[in-house]
Amino acid sequence: MNSIIKVLLIVAVRIDPWSSESIKEYGKLFEFFGIKPFKDVLPQLNRIAKPYRLMRRGIIFGHRDFDKAVEALMKGKKVAILTGLMPSGKMHFGHKMLIDQLVYYQKELHADVIVAIADVEAYAVRKKSRSELIKTAIYEYVANYIALGLDPEKTKIYFQSNYDVNYYRLIQLFSRKVTMAELRAIYGEDLGPGKIVSVLTQAADILHPYLPEFGGYDVVVVPVGADQDPHLRLARDIADRFSNELPLKRPASTYHRFMSGLTGTGKMSSSTPDSFIALTDPPDVAVRKLMNAFTGGRPTAAEQRRLGGEPEKCPVYELNAYHLIEDDSELAELYRRCKSGEILCGKCKKETAARLKEFLINHQEKLESAKEIVKDVVEPPPF
Amino acid sequence: MNSIIKVLLIVAVRIDPWSSESIKEYGKLFEFFGIKPFKDVLPQLNRIAKPYRLMRRGIIFGHRDFDKAVEALMKGKKVAILTGLMPSGKMHFGHKMLIDQLVYYQKELHADVIVAIADVEAYAVRKKSRSELIKTAIYEYVANYIALGLDPEKTKIYFQSNYDVNYYRLIQLFSRKVTMAELRAIYGEDLGPGKIVSVLTQAADILHPYLPEFGGYDVVVVPVGADQDPHLRLARDIADRFSNELPLKRPASTYHRFMSGLTGTGKMSSSTPDSFIALTDPPDVAVRKLMNAFTGGRPTAAEQRRLGGEPEKCPVYELNAYHLIEDDSELAELYRRCKSGEILCGKCKKETAARLKEFLINHQEKLESAKEIVKDVVEPPPF
Repeated sequence: MNSIIKVLLIVAVRIDPWSSESIKEYGKLFEFFGIKPFKDVLPQLNRIAKPYRLMRRGIIFGHRDFDKAVEALMKGKKVAILTGLMPSGKMHFGHKMLIDQLVYYQKELHADVIVAIADVEAYAVRKKSRSELIKTAIYEYVANYIALGLDPEKTKIYFQSNYDVNYYRLIQLFSRKVTMAELRAIYGEDLGPGKIVSVLTQAADILHPYLPEFGGYDVVVVPVGADQDPHLRLARDIADRFSNELPLKRPASTYHRFMSGLTGTGKMSSSTPDSFIALTDPPDVAVRKLMNAFTGGRPTAAEQRRLGGEPEKCPVYELNAYHLIEDDSELAELYRRCKSGEILCGKCKKETAARLKEFLINHQEKLESAKEIVKDVVEPPPF
Repeated sequence: MNSIIKVLLIVAVRIDPWSSESIKEYGKLFEFFGIKPFKDVLPQLNRIAKPYRLMRRGIIFGHRDFDKAVEALMKGKKVAILTGLMPSGKMHFGHKMLIDQLVYYQKELHADVIVAIADVEAYAVRKKSRSELIKTAIYEYVANYIALGLDPEKTKIYFQSNYDVNYYRLIQLFSRKVTMAELRAIYGEDLGPGKIVSVLTQAADILHPYLPEFGGYDVVVVPVGADQDPHLRLARDIADRFSNELPLKRPASTYHRFMSGLTGTGKMSSSTPDSFIALTDPPDVAVRKLMNAFTGGRPTAAEQRRLGGEPEKCPVYELNAYHLIEDDSELAELYRRCKSGEILCGKCKKETAARLKEFLINHQEKLESAKEIVKDVVEPPPF
């Protein structure tokens, strides 16, 4: 085979090593619940803006009704992107991928971004003091969101415990048309009043932008990890059940893969300290974590030179693909060098470390400025 | 026995034929849950105002911490009287006895009256449309409250679905410290999300006046029927559980007997049409219901003349004692005439009918005026 064609073929899959795997992993979602492949909406999206890197790379792999959101944007209709923020632990790169999506929607698609701070859920399930989680929400999360590029002037950010009466009324009304049996099916048998209230509150988070009192949006899009789909299905069902009473519609949603933990097992998670790099980690600490990370390398250097690495299993490749390399051809080149055995893990980690360090220094500078204005961006609840 | 002494002895119990019976009936409450006899606080209350007729007559028979409310009033501290209103069916004399208490507290004791319209609970359990129950709340209930003498300028009336963010936050916080097991113990096994939310909402109704945001009251008194005590116990427990976080205190409460239904079985209830006289019944309809009512009479006139009637079992006597006769000696005289066999049921009903008719004509005139201003008294939820 002509080597140029060979390179082109590699390039064709180069930045998207997970898409088929995601579909396999999350196959049940597609099959049973009607989640559609995200790549099918890319051509349509392309007509208004360049798809975002997580979209281009198959990391955002599925959607429900996202085509309707794109259509609405093309027609100049009102589209809201809604996300929830759990103020618990440190904000890390696993969280960042969601905020990057919000920034893309806000800057490139001119959609309105709404952020619900799930302090009610955090209080119900995490057993932290209210003052602690309010502080975490503002200074650890919202400040980082702003530093990542979310425009505080254009973003609506609210605490679940400090919002609007019309929102609370939704929670009350929803409670009538939801049964314990269906909640148990989604959230398990161990379902106390705290969890029930926070689940209903989350449904109100998702659906409230449809009400005229909150802007009367045409489409609400909720970007989530694949495991969050049950919440979306519940919100869709609730919208249906109130079709005669309230102007609610089914939310649209997108589904992304999780970032792997640096340890190579499970997802990046604040409950496993070695698995994540926090956005506030001092650069040398972050680099040390990176250098200790699991990779898609082979047992010996010789073997790796012969067989090539396995970027699709590599948290370091993920860090580059999800976060550190914006340019597709640059990422494709890394993929090619790894896959061909041209670059070994030590060297790759060093290159990645340089990018990581640059990002963190830059980000943490922005974070300091963000912390100075964040108090004015969201109103904390008085208790 | 000297006949004057005999009359005095009859007079001593004359207006209070139920007190010992109530204590027997509701004995468990006293025994297990620390409800105290209301008569014990009468001397203390007497120092600030003449006790209200339901108090004097043993119809309000028990209390928790009401002595603290009286003490607070004596010291010029802030006392709130809180009640809930279920906007369902027609307002009848069984409901009126609670409103009369509110009017007494407002006019005679200068306490602040707060009325929570339990539209969330009504929506969750009664399966009526929102617009219907909002209309019922305003035009059937609140209008009647005003006509009964509640000062709209001095009364805070709110819909559970249209209130303040600090109140909704209480509901959210309460949800964490209440378990399904205890809710099931109080409200039964068949406990859906709608009922759970309305129970937590009711706890917020009871406790919110303690917060500085709502006036920071020193004592909140909740006058209820005896079957409502579990709600109060839950609210007291919740206040205790938040003692380190929020300035909540245990609510005080008073307990009254139910009015009997006119049919002689069960309590006066809107779900049994023949059992009640509505405040909006045309006087002739009301009189007809009264004339058909069960009484404490004997099988034959001769027997009744010999043995006397049984006012303690008589819904017609109740109607007089609870509502139609304010003057104690007038009521005592009726009691004496009945008990001695001097007056038979037909005549008594006629006398009562005259009082009832006078009351209704008078009340319904006030109701028409109240309906004209009621729109400005409470803000209905937009949906």
